Amino acid sequence: MQRVAFQGEVGAFSEEAVGVLMPAGRPVPFPSFEAVFEALMREDVDAAVVPIENTLFGSVHVNYDLLREHEVRIVGEVNLRIRHNLLVRHGVRYENITCVMSHPQALGQCKTFLRSHLPDVEQRAVYDTAGAAKRVATIEDRSVAAIASIKAADVYDLHVLAESIESNHQNYTRFLALSRSAATRSLPGAGGSKTSIVYALGKTEPGSLFRALSIFAENGIDLLKIESRPLIGIPGSYMFYLDLDGSATDANVASALSKLQGMADFVRVLGSYPRGMWVDGSSITASPA
Amino acid sequence: MQRVAFQGEVGAFSEEAVGVLMPAGRPVPFPSFEAVFEALMREDVDAAVVPIENTLFGSVHVNYDLLREHEVRIVGEVNLRIRHNLLVRHGVRYENITCVMSHPQALGQCKTFLRSHLPDVEQRAVYDTAGAAKRVATIEDRSVAAIASIKAADVYDLHVLAESIESNHQNYTRFLALSRSAATRSLPGAGGSKTSIVYALGKTEPGSLFRALSIFAENGIDLLKIESRPLIGIPGSYMFYLDLDGSATDANVASALSKLQGMADFVRVLGSYPRGMWVDGSSITASPA
Repeated sequence: MQRVAFQGEVGAFSEEAVGVLMPAGRPVPFPSFEAVFEALMREDVDAAVVPIENTLFGSVHVNYDLLREHEVRIVGEVNLRIRHNLLVRHGVRYENITCVMSHPQALGQCKTFLRSHLPDVEQRAVYDTAGAAKRVATIEDRSVAAIASIKAADVYDLHVLAESIESNHQNYTRFLALSRSAATRSLPGAGGSKTSIVYALGKTEPGSLFRALSIFAENGIDLLKIESRPLIGIPGSYMFYLDLDGSATDANVASALSKLQGMADFVRVLGSYPRGMWVDGSSITASPA
Repeated sequence: MQRVAFQGEVGAFSEEAVGVLMPAGRPVPFPSFEAVFEALMREDVDAAVVPIENTLFGSVHVNYDLLREHEVRIVGEVNLRIRHNLLVRHGVRYENITCVMSHPQALGQCKTFLRSHLPDVEQRAVYDTAGAAKRVATIEDRSVAAIASIKAADVYDLHVLAESIESNHQNYTRFLALSRSAATRSLPGAGGSKTSIVYALGKTEPGSLFRALSIFAENGIDLLKIESRPLIGIPGSYMFYLDLDGSATDANVASALSKLQGMADFVRVLGSYPRGMWVDGSSITASPA
């Protein structure tokens, strides 16, 4: 059975992403993203799943850095709806709760719910949502609730007192499936291919940032994501993250990439892979409708 | 005296940014970014300072959302080097430490130091670095250390056992100064102006993402930041964050913005302001050298 590394506690959203992308794989938890990449390189695991961007909180630059630093390939992706739920020990009711524990972002997103349902209750920020559920399940004090996933409720045998308590419902995290080499068989997708690249432009003249992008337009390639990031230590230089429509083996993509190579300080193709589905619980769609 | 809102505990990096951008202002702490924006709109404070992007952790999308939702203007910016330090109660030495407390990102960034200097010590993740320092200063157990800023050591009267213990030294956070209206007098900067805009392209055809950017190249405007973000609920549509060289009152910028208005679903100028300095402790430069 394929072993698939993810960061966090059992019951984390990353584990859910493993289940969608590699349903036959066995998720293996690691304490940090660095540990996930190291385990993949050491061949302790066969694959890995890491978050790369969130619709509310932006790109996870540290994972882009780890992607650049390790010889791994992106082989798939999925966009997973993040839903928060109020979890308690069995038998605990609203009036018994004295403290709600979760990741600070989750507490912030459930602010309106907490204000109207648990106005005088202490809020305690912890490292991750699944970790909060684990603690609620194991500590002596039964009056503590957690905000976490439905999966965490299941894993730690907690009761779901309220479902989907977040105010903003446009919360999706995009997860990447990683492997040491190109995929031998395709992971599930929404149809069509996508290619992720990272490149750097040294000491730019005015307009060079734009000229690099024009290479793709001239080759009829649609851009799905553009992100620039200043390079520290080299004033005026940038790193770019681009997602392109198509595969690196397509003639027009291959031609554009070779032109880019002549212009950029470095170009790295992180992988060509099936475009990801948008998954919200049991509902699966090709776009975030 | 101007009251300037920031998110976090006293001693947070945001408070340091207030000190650089508005040295004569009085920093006022708030528990969340939402509370910071609300205080500014209610005129409880005169200005606010919020983080918008970090070189390692990416853009803070929630603050871009709050910028769009509130009638505020960006009036300045600064890039602040984030340095982590090991803080303890006076008299505590390495061999006394049983636990290190900090924000998970700070613990991760100081991993190499912790591995070699405090290998068997418990690591406890908490909400923010200044909050960790505050707790170390007030709890009964003297064996707990915090990872936080030098400023936090000063505020909570802690001893700095080791300075700059992070492995990656390319850690800068960009902070924006916000006001309800355009600045009456200029905030400190590195020379030159910058304009931040946000715009949305509805249901894009292939290449439209690129065509919107070409407007700026045609008007001879250099782009300093490009970031796309998919719009949830409207498949195929994007929101863009752009930073441009120049002021919205410059003829070429004004002309480009009016052309963009004819093409985008909406365009919002978040502000024109002096380009920010790069600040590392007492060293101040025009670029991240």
